[in-house]
Amino acid sequence: MEAKELRNQIRNGTFDKTTSGAAGNHVQANVVILPKRYAFDFLLYAMRNHQAVPIIEVLEDGRTESVYAEGSDIRTDVPRYNVYRDGKLSETVDDISDWWQDDFVTFLIGCSFTFEQAITDAGFEMKHIMQNRNVAMYRTSIKTVPAGIFSGDLVVSMRPFRKESVERIAEITGMFPDMHGRPIHHGDPDAIGITDLGQPDYGDSVELIEDEVPVFWACGVTPQNAALNARPEVMITHAPGHMFVTDLYNEAFKVRQPE
Amino acid sequence: MEAKELRNQIRNGTFDKTTSGAAGNHVQANVVILPKRYAFDFLLYAMRNHQAVPIIEVLEDGRTESVYAEGSDIRTDVPRYNVYRDGKLSETVDDISDWWQDDFVTFLIGCSFTFEQAITDAGFEMKHIMQNRNVAMYRTSIKTVPAGIFSGDLVVSMRPFRKESVERIAEITGMFPDMHGRPIHHGDPDAIGITDLGQPDYGDSVELIEDEVPVFWACGVTPQNAALNARPEVMITHAPGHMFVTDLYNEAFKVRQPE
Repeated sequence: MEAKELRNQIRNGTFDKTTSGAAGNHVQANVVILPKRYAFDFLLYAMRNHQAVPIIEVLEDGRTESVYAEGSDIRTDVPRYNVYRDGKLSETVDDISDWWQDDFVTFLIGCSFTFEQAITDAGFEMKHIMQNRNVAMYRTSIKTVPAGIFSGDLVVSMRPFRKESVERIAEITGMFPDMHGRPIHHGDPDAIGITDLGQPDYGDSVELIEDEVPVFWACGVTPQNAALNARPEVMITHAPGHMFVTDLYNEAFKVRQPE
Repeated sequence: MEAKELRNQIRNGTFDKTTSGAAGNHVQANVVILPKRYAFDFLLYAMRNHQAVPIIEVLEDGRTESVYAEGSDIRTDVPRYNVYRDGKLSETVDDISDWWQDDFVTFLIGCSFTFEQAITDAGFEMKHIMQNRNVAMYRTSIKTVPAGIFSGDLVVSMRPFRKESVERIAEITGMFPDMHGRPIHHGDPDAIGITDLGQPDYGDSVELIEDEVPVFWACGVTPQNAALNARPEVMITHAPGHMFVTDLYNEAFKVRQPE
């Protein structure tokens, strides 16, 4: 399916589930929407934590159409939104037109679906996709670099792979430095402050079998965690797994030399 | 001379000239200081025009010491500052302590002195350095990508080189993608809207001899030009050629693979 057609189906409600695997060649984005008075702090937080928060585009206040998604409207073209008030989840909705404020600034942030497509194309299977689940995500003990009101622990996504595949997988995702890049860790969850792999903080758990190791990547949900600390009066994000689909191709973010 | 010693001499007034060639292995930075209400627009402008405005560090409001310059004070450690009011140059001073506002945000921006050092180390001479002049800079007809109140034409620096050296020079500066990188143009000044090489908009002119071609790089003075259009009530910058000297080494910004 083409990206534009998918956005139309999302807008009119005929597509209302996770966008994982849908229009798979197109770049999907994490979404963070904030009043302009927080925008400098957030943009600086993104810059300082690029691996977790790689900015694809900023829609200044007054803009609702992405230049990378023709005819799009950020108020209607995400299948599910989380509305946070004072840092707490207050509503989950499929249209934010009634919540929209003229001073809202929208940040589109790179998403691991891009490198997942590359992993799939290289012939590897991922358990959460086979089981039709959301990827498992965890808060770690790794501190992000603060900026203004934003601070907090790095959130990571986890995918299990056989031990002998880990270096190849790291190379594949390293070709996408602006889409979270190489894993930040593999092996011991305790080493990065994760005490129970069976209890992810976001998404769904997956079981590891004997010869598999957990592989961890910096995750675009990190800023949602930072917002829990910052407590802005209002902040709107996509619901995990329910992304904004752009017209960009994943291939465009592939570098010739891995980082 | 070490960077810290140079900053001390600048602070106490015993060093008061251009920093070109001083503490030459250390990264020097263009400086832009703005009230926080303009900081989001400016940071977004920098992101969208990375080749001209590569951010090294942002000092949020309340901070005056760079993490990359131990014991530094941005209010005293630049040899010469330009103070702009409503987009017009109002004063040139050697200390901005009396002008300082609590809401000031400081942007440190990559500078061509880094790649000039690499050009020199590769055995090439540059005329403006031999003649102890400031590099020639020109407004072009190339539009930058606007962000909020900031917009305007790209400013470039120009250095003449023999025709047969241009590709080698481009390779050398391409190793520093976060310090303006490869030239944006060489050869015909008219093609980028420069009508008279003898009349630079900033800095000093240099003469070209017969087998030399002008080579042009995106320049960190571009945001000063954008400020002329934006007309913030107050904005402070370094005076051209009079930079902030950090403890960072130029070598740290060299990539293994040129862009």
